[in-house]
Amino acid sequence: MKEIGIALLGLGNVGLGTYRILADHARDIERRLGARVRVRHILVRDSGRARPEDVPAALITRDIAPILADPEVSVVVEVMGGLSPAREFLEKAIASGRHVVTANKALLTAHGEALFSQALARGVDLHFEGAVCGGIPIIRTLREALASDRVSSIHGIVNGTTNFILSAMADEGSTYEDALARAQKLGYAEADPTLDVNGMDAAQKLCLLASLAFAARVSPKDVHVEGITSLRPVDITLGREAGYVLKLLAIARRLPEGLDVRVHPAFIPGASPLADVRGAFNAVLLQSAALGASLFSGLGAGSLPTGSAVVSDIIDICRNLLAGVSGRLPMLSAPYVQEVPQIPSDERRGPVYLRFSVSDEPGVLGRIATVLGEKGVSLASVIQRPARPEDPHATIVVFTHTARERDVQAAVQWIDALRSTRSPTQVIRIEEGPGVLRVGG
Amino acid sequence: MKEIGIALLGLGNVGLGTYRILADHARDIERRLGARVRVRHILVRDSGRARPEDVPAALITRDIAPILADPEVSVVVEVMGGLSPAREFLEKAIASGRHVVTANKALLTAHGEALFSQALARGVDLHFEGAVCGGIPIIRTLREALASDRVSSIHGIVNGTTNFILSAMADEGSTYEDALARAQKLGYAEADPTLDVNGMDAAQKLCLLASLAFAARVSPKDVHVEGITSLRPVDITLGREAGYVLKLLAIARRLPEGLDVRVHPAFIPGASPLADVRGAFNAVLLQSAALGASLFSGLGAGSLPTGSAVVSDIIDICRNLLAGVSGRLPMLSAPYVQEVPQIPSDERRGPVYLRFSVSDEPGVLGRIATVLGEKGVSLASVIQRPARPEDPHATIVVFTHTARERDVQAAVQWIDALRSTRSPTQVIRIEEGPGVLRVGG
Ligand SMILES: NC(=O)c1ccc[n+]([C@@H]2O[C@H](COP(=O)([O-])OP(=O)(O)OC[C@H]3O[C@@H](n4cnc5c(N)ncnc54)[C@H](OP(=O)(O)O)[C@@H]3O)[C@@H](O)[C@H]2O)c1
Ligand SMILES: NC(=O)c1ccc[n+]([C@@H]2O[C@H](COP(=O)([O-])OP(=O)(O)OC[C@H]3O[C@@H](n4cnc5c(N)ncnc54)[C@H](OP(=O)(O)O)[C@@H]3O)[C@@H](O)[C@H]2O)c1
Repeated sequence: MKEIGIALLGLGNVGLGTYRILADHARDIERRLGARVRVRHILVRDSGRARPEDVPAALITRDIAPILADPEVSVVVEVMGGLSPAREFLEKAIASGRHVVTANKALLTAHGEALFSQALARGVDLHFEGAVCGGIPIIRTLREALASDRVSSIHGIVNGTTNFILSAMADEGSTYEDALARAQKLGYAEADPTLDVNGMDAAQKLCLLASLAFAARVSPKDVHVEGITSLRPVDITLGREAGYVLKLLAIARRLPEGLDVRVHPAFIPGASPLADVRGAFNAVLLQSAALGASLFSGLGAGSLPTGSAVVSDIIDICRNLLAGVSGRLPMLSAPYVQEVPQIPSDERRGPVYLRFSVSDEPGVLGRIATVLGEKGVSLASVIQRPARPEDPHATIVVFTHTARERDVQAAVQWIDALRSTRSPTQVIRIEEGPGVLRVGG
Repeated sequence: MKEIGIALLGLGNVGLGTYRILADHARDIERRLGARVRVRHILVRDSGRARPEDVPAALITRDIAPILADPEVSVVVEVMGGLSPAREFLEKAIASGRHVVTANKALLTAHGEALFSQALARGVDLHFEGAVCGGIPIIRTLREALASDRVSSIHGIVNGTTNFILSAMADEGSTYEDALARAQKLGYAEADPTLDVNGMDAAQKLCLLASLAFAARVSPKDVHVEGITSLRPVDITLGREAGYVLKLLAIARRLPEGLDVRVHPAFIPGASPLADVRGAFNAVLLQSAALGASLFSGLGAGSLPTGSAVVSDIIDICRNLLAGVSGRLPMLSAPYVQEVPQIPSDERRGPVYLRFSVSDEPGVLGRIATVLGEKGVSLASVIQRPARPEDPHATIVVFTHTARERDVQAAVQWIDALRSTRSPTQVIRIEEGPGVLRVGG
């Protein structure tokens, strides 16, 4: 039987998952391919460290040179993470004519276009299903299934850590800090969760999704990003009373004026299929011209789920190798990817939730309502809660009608400067365009 | 720019959707392909009939011969339906070296293996994304994304007509007959809905999904099929009171003893993501070894959704043509597809809902409970409702613990023969294996 040699760069979470799937599903994969996939080398940083027993020690090396020198290696799989030396190793692999697979969203958002151009020029494939939403085949769906269609919007829950934290806050009423600590204890959050909770991880994934869906150059600097660190259980409770669920949403929309790309916490209707996506799960809701709404959901991270995406990419490349082709799919670089205007985030129009923390005295609501009115922000409903033993300030919550973000910001700036305002106003966008966050009726 | 010529066989719902997507998205598709897709012929049955204005009359023909004689036609797209002459036309197209696309689930379940073998032997591609769940890329997902994984179960809502009817019965309390009439009026059900409501359409789709997922030969005769015609609003109401939603489920599971493949109405937990799939939508929930639970949902039929799947297949084949390859994916025929033992449906174990219609007299419940007990079917809960003006019989509803289907059948046969039993007992399976019908936490 024909054999295709591959090298893994990295044997951490994803690397080990990839190795194990290749080993455990070897017979199935052989049947599907008519060939055998053989791991010939595994690159690690610390060659002295103990490795799981099922990984042959002879495969492990600290040195990239012999890997790139091995003519039997056709596919190089980068699952080490970080920008450097991952970038240089991939460049060398591509330069030497190897097809490459990566799960490294940080690298692709920082240097993807250079890597894709290089792969295009060298005529090799560069696959990256594992970089976005772990095992959910969303890259494949956008590149292939929806190649027939015109995507108008993407709404995704693409970061399992923050979704786990928000689910825990909603279910158990825990504070952000407690929920984060639990997520870390259970292994759902890294020791340093900064890039998750500040929304940057979601923004990187969204850039890749939006680039693919809109054939547009979208980089993190084009994305308006807000994280979840300022959210309080009271926001979740008050939103729920109005029928909403709080999620960290990654949103990309194609409008006549350009692209609207952002990551921020948002209230979504309890009936949205995204509202049911809980814990470590991810989901992406697409709207496209011919297909309408479609939803893709599953585990967005973890050793085996992400490994399954990496192995699918390896299989796809093996199918190309066996057929003697490459470059079947357009690369995420020029000329395919083009410059598209971006809509400034403060041009967004939509309803918002505003929570004001104010001194418990007469006339405060009147002043707030007046400022909002002057800025053109009209109120849909208001809840006022007096000061309580555990919170010495009164709470005023306003759900607005559709308003322009810039006007909301101007009003909030004004209100936050009032003597009666006790702490910065909490602003949470509400996303509920009819039909946009629904699938299934 | 390079041009790839295709022929459409059929210009009905799907054919017109396919034509329109190719026309409306022509520029996007050109960019993705680096080539143009040109429709050169459209075969219809009745060439005298008026056709939509956007379809050039010159393309339309009643004659297959000139289509197959045109050397510029590289891809033949069968969207006419029926077994004959669709089969013969596809065979001729394959024999002449054309790649083919079909959305014809009936043809593929009846003669798929012969067609796939022929395509394999002739070295051409045969794509069929449109045949299952309209625009949801579930075929692609099983063939490519999950090529790395081992699927253990499929639970699908794969027929929009029956799902629409059950949603209407649940939401409006309508009878089956009224809901069907409304579905027909709104265009969600055919004038002859037999194959939808008796479950055969779902069974055909399930055969294709199960064959792909398990690399097994699965034909409709292997599937235990029950339709929705005997369901009553009272079943939906009583199930709902116990937290269940009633759906027509297509189920395929790989167990150590073999495959369990069936289509029948089932109660599923209200918290299952499948419970939220409403109206004309379809959804497929997969369980696989590495990825875990994943859910795919969207419109399962209709001109444009199905057309989008057909056009994706056309694009995929064009990518192969441009790269000069074919046969990248295994065909659904021997040697890839193999014989796998099937588990008889009466071996199923699980809880069931039983609704007995009985005369309103003392001792009836005792007799029923005794028979169930004797057959080894143990009760989880019982509801008894007296006769009412609109229903002269008393109703007894039993939710059982896990029971073997054969034992339930034996008990029901016995009970239906009792003098006090007024009409045949309604049996509805409950599907709720922990983790199986959940995704998202
Ligand atoms: N974890 C997930 O669920 C997940 C999901 C989607 C995508 N990803 C992406 O997948 C990639 C890998 O993530 P991970 O969680 O598997 O990381 P990880 O557990 O930290 O593993 C990294 C591996 O790469 C090796 N490595 C790191 N730097 C190296 C260097 N300079 N030279 C040689 N080897 C080096 C490490 O070697 P040692 O073992 O010797 O330390 C380790 O085996 C990242 O790009 C990440 O964003 C991860
Ligand atoms: N409708 C859906 O939503 C859907 C979804 C998934 C899959 N499918 C499948 O797609 C296929 C087409 O369905 P459809 O709803 O589009 O059917 P349809 O509306 O009945 O259209 C059938 C088309 O094929 C032509 N045709 C039929 N028999 C022919 C013959 N013997 N010779 C030449 N032309 C012939 C008809 O010509 P005339 O126009 O002259 O009658 C018509 O244009 C079926 O296999 C169906 O199962 C349909």
